[in-house]
Amino acid sequence: MKTVHVNLGARSYDILIGRHLLERLPEFLSRYERGSRIFVVSNPVVFELYGAGLKDSLQKAGFEPTEFLIPDGEQHKTLTTVENIYTYLIAQGADRSSLLMALGGGVTGDVAGFVAATFLRGIPLIQIPTTLLAQVDSSVGGKTGVNHHLGKNLIGAFYQPDFVSVDLETLSSLPERQFNSGLYEVIKYGLIYDAQFFDFLEKRLDLLQGREPEVLETVISRCCEIKAEVISNDEREEDLRRILNFGHTFGHALEAAFEYQGVTHGEAVGYGMLAALRLSRDLGYLDTVDLNRVSRCIRAIGRLPNAAGVPFQELLEAMQRDKKRHHDDLVMILLKGIGQTVFHSNIDEHLLAEAWSHVLLGS
Amino acid sequence: MKTVHVNLGARSYDILIGRHLLERLPEFLSRYERGSRIFVVSNPVVFELYGAGLKDSLQKAGFEPTEFLIPDGEQHKTLTTVENIYTYLIAQGADRSSLLMALGGGVTGDVAGFVAATFLRGIPLIQIPTTLLAQVDSSVGGKTGVNHHLGKNLIGAFYQPDFVSVDLETLSSLPERQFNSGLYEVIKYGLIYDAQFFDFLEKRLDLLQGREPEVLETVISRCCEIKAEVISNDEREEDLRRILNFGHTFGHALEAAFEYQGVTHGEAVGYGMLAALRLSRDLGYLDTVDLNRVSRCIRAIGRLPNAAGVPFQELLEAMQRDKKRHHDDLVMILLKGIGQTVFHSNIDEHLLAEAWSHVLLGS
Repeated sequence: MKTVHVNLGARSYDILIGRHLLERLPEFLSRYERGSRIFVVSNPVVFELYGAGLKDSLQKAGFEPTEFLIPDGEQHKTLTTVENIYTYLIAQGADRSSLLMALGGGVTGDVAGFVAATFLRGIPLIQIPTTLLAQVDSSVGGKTGVNHHLGKNLIGAFYQPDFVSVDLETLSSLPERQFNSGLYEVIKYGLIYDAQFFDFLEKRLDLLQGREPEVLETVISRCCEIKAEVISNDEREEDLRRILNFGHTFGHALEAAFEYQGVTHGEAVGYGMLAALRLSRDLGYLDTVDLNRVSRCIRAIGRLPNAAGVPFQELLEAMQRDKKRHHDDLVMILLKGIGQTVFHSNIDEHLLAEAWSHVLLGS
Repeated sequence: MKTVHVNLGARSYDILIGRHLLERLPEFLSRYERGSRIFVVSNPVVFELYGAGLKDSLQKAGFEPTEFLIPDGEQHKTLTTVENIYTYLIAQGADRSSLLMALGGGVTGDVAGFVAATFLRGIPLIQIPTTLLAQVDSSVGGKTGVNHHLGKNLIGAFYQPDFVSVDLETLSSLPERQFNSGLYEVIKYGLIYDAQFFDFLEKRLDLLQGREPEVLETVISRCCEIKAEVISNDEREEDLRRILNFGHTFGHALEAAFEYQGVTHGEAVGYGMLAALRLSRDLGYLDTVDLNRVSRCIRAIGRLPNAAGVPFQELLEAMQRDKKRHHDDLVMILLKGIGQTVFHSNIDEHLLAEAWSHVLLGS
């Protein structure tokens, strides 16, 4: 087992990464009072696989777990789901000493995290991410929230968990496309922060896709370390933390253009990184050798869904809406060589269009 | 103008207290970008009186204020109101640089505060409390939130404002009963923390009820100072902060028994303090001279609504529910002399009943 410490002063916490950690959970809960209520928020698919085992080990250790299942899918990441969980918690007699445990992917973690942040002005939260994407990204950093019918992730809070437990076994049941979706974010960490890590990933992509446990442990730990370092220096996304959004400007726009169907978040980020890499080269930050090398690695993960039908104008408008909402002055995160980022503002629309058309052509 | 600094590390802020501060708001906004959007959340009664003036001074200073009005009353302190404000903010194009300004009493501040805490994971909040109760209590300390249909204040977040501006002029329009309701909380600060302040209040109750501006400024500032000192040492209500709940054990139970109609929060706290004082004497913490002196002062504020029809059993059950929710082990806050508190657990039901019957008899 590896431990990554997230240093946020009084809100610091550990990320535990290893095999069979679900069974070992009671160890990590030793600081909580025996008899504490544990409310597990999960989705039916994940709970079917891991729920009984989890509850069993918690019960044996003297805790009282019960569960609330959220249907799978982004369309359930709403204030209505949040309200249903509040009602469940109140009906079950939850109090400030109760623990909320999020067992599942990004949607589960985001919704449960927001409930933990806002029920009785905050109750303890434990994140148990079961998808690669959630393990390396959404469960770490304290971003919680839900969608509003007028836009994604508009409602939320920064709220840190007590700890995060990543059980590598849960990845064995993850469908290939979901696993690959997480790999795009994994590659991202190498690109924005650590050239050596990118080398490692590039060389071991096969082992990684074979879900070799030791490689997984090393890779997930390194991703969490990088994210932890970045957010320790910028918890509330003032500036530095934005490097984590590499590939997300195009990525978010593409997801919106697809109406969040037919493309996963990771795939959209994959496309976004390809576009950002091309721009990095076109604007003189990255040489062509590196552009080709990195693009090849991203494309080696898997086949990206066909995006040729999306009009560029639509992408552009989505980017502008996103930017406006974040008061960002059209800043894009680009690469200045592998492992280093640079912010570039006010990129010409023609350059954006050209980069995108090259990406679509696969060049 | 007096300034009280609330020391909470990176989340520190000032409370400004004085006359005509609504007109002087632009001064205090100098650190914000001109052209920033300001979203004023208020209620129709308060906005009718002060809205036009406020908007006018903000516009003259180069800001763009617009308003959203919440109907008056606790029954609108709901997640539905919160969702309506989100929709308004999104429709108006609010972004992370927008300011939310709460102009009104406790309900307005609690709801607007929760919106500020959870819109785009937190936007700047300015509290402009216009009732005495909100000025000395709810606008200070960062408690925000709404009710759930199964219970009061179950949904919320700790979220500190950028600053609080208390314009004493707004008290001139406050109905007498609402003003007196605030006075119970004012007296509370003397009782739990500062015997000299209690002396001051006792001697100047007439001037205070005459709303003499200089006395008001002194009194409100001292209340804010005390609250600031308490929460600076305990932002998230682990322990010390609970002394602020003096009188609230019986108080909350009484409000619940009245179904939040026919008794104001302050009046319920008035009753609760009378009961807690009696218990303090009966348990040997307070002498009879002080009990009588303080009870006389509390009763001098005004006539408390008739509570004789509330069965004691109902109060007891409400207290136990409240306690359970807060995982409190039936701890009551009592007085060990004027100006000093003591926690006492597991008080015998008969003692509670006896104290309450004495309070009802006015003795």
